[in-house]
Amino acid sequence: MKIIVVGGTGTIGKAVVRELSTCHEIITVGYQRGDVKADITQVSSIEEMYKKIGKFDALVSTTGKVHFSLLSEFNSDNYSLGLQNKLMGQVNLVLIGMKYINDAGSFTLTSGILSDDPILYGSSAAMVNGAINAFVKSAAIEMPKQIRINAVSPTVLTESMDKFGKYFHGFESVTGNRVALAYRKSIEGAQTGQVYKVW
Amino acid sequence: MKIIVVGGTGTIGKAVVRELSTCHEIITVGYQRGDVKADITQVSSIEEMYKKIGKFDALVSTTGKVHFSLLSEFNSDNYSLGLQNKLMGQVNLVLIGMKYINDAGSFTLTSGILSDDPILYGSSAAMVNGAINAFVKSAAIEMPKQIRINAVSPTVLTESMDKFGKYFHGFESVTGNRVALAYRKSIEGAQTGQVYKVW
Repeated sequence: MKIIVVGGTGTIGKAVVRELSTCHEIITVGYQRGDVKADITQVSSIEEMYKKIGKFDALVSTTGKVHFSLLSEFNSDNYSLGLQNKLMGQVNLVLIGMKYINDAGSFTLTSGILSDDPILYGSSAAMVNGAINAFVKSAAIEMPKQIRINAVSPTVLTESMDKFGKYFHGFESVTGNRVALAYRKSIEGAQTGQVYKVW
Repeated sequence: MKIIVVGGTGTIGKAVVRELSTCHEIITVGYQRGDVKADITQVSSIEEMYKKIGKFDALVSTTGKVHFSLLSEFNSDNYSLGLQNKLMGQVNLVLIGMKYINDAGSFTLTSGILSDDPILYGSSAAMVNGAINAFVKSAAIEMPKQIRINAVSPTVLTESMDKFGKYFHGFESVTGNRVALAYRKSIEGAQTGQVYKVW
């Protein structure tokens, strides 16, 4: 299969590329690095990315920014970052990608544990993850041509504990390699509308 | 209690006002009608609303617009309506309201069944409802001064079947009176971070 990995140079993305590259052709996409560069907050940049790559069989997105802060310090603009970047960035990858994906192809997006198991500072992440999980479930029933869509919802990564561990006290981390299996299940399996929780 | 009902002139809002007005002081807020007028998509309008009303004990929001269309016909702007209106409109009622609400007060927002049980045309509603449910769960753990926050997630209303029934074939509708009980439970009970499903 020809598989696009948006965010392929990040912690999860690299693990996904390792997991998939023995059996598939991988095209990595990043904001600054990767085989193709794209800014997922710009519809025109996503269009250009797909035009460069052409037809494909699967898209994995392991990208997306959200703001972290105490609820009492959040304002509307802080939530916009997550809504424009992690949520609509990924949703636009799907909406535009529907024109380029092969029949029976798949989209696999990334949400995360914080909508199910919230932490201090995480209200935007929770909001965005909840939105992604519900979007995937709903979009799955409207996909044409046997195209599938799933999300992977990981907990905090072992590789990221140095940076984020202080926010996730008491959480059991998972390795990138374990998380990558969920993306492989989404791509090579036959399920749709699923949220694969890895925790 | 002094209770603000934003969307108090809509189908659910009217039922909530009926349910609560025998025991509480109710202030209805609407875009065009109500005791106080406010545009929930404008932070300045929400600020002004709270300044007019002053301290209060509970806010119920039964308002919010989303776009309905086939997934294949959705674009990014169509999703923005729901994100700006039903999602961030309600979230901003909470963020700004935290400055005006009495200790041990409560916020009760409205999501809906479509994030759990999707229909054709409903991917934006699903996204927004999933975001609201997760936001409420996460915000609850960060609320100061024993302030609580819950959501009510109703299925299609019996009173709205004339208008929306064609999208909800096979769904069992519920009356506004039944849905209103969930808001009362949220306000007069002691739970927080809950999504009360009424279906």
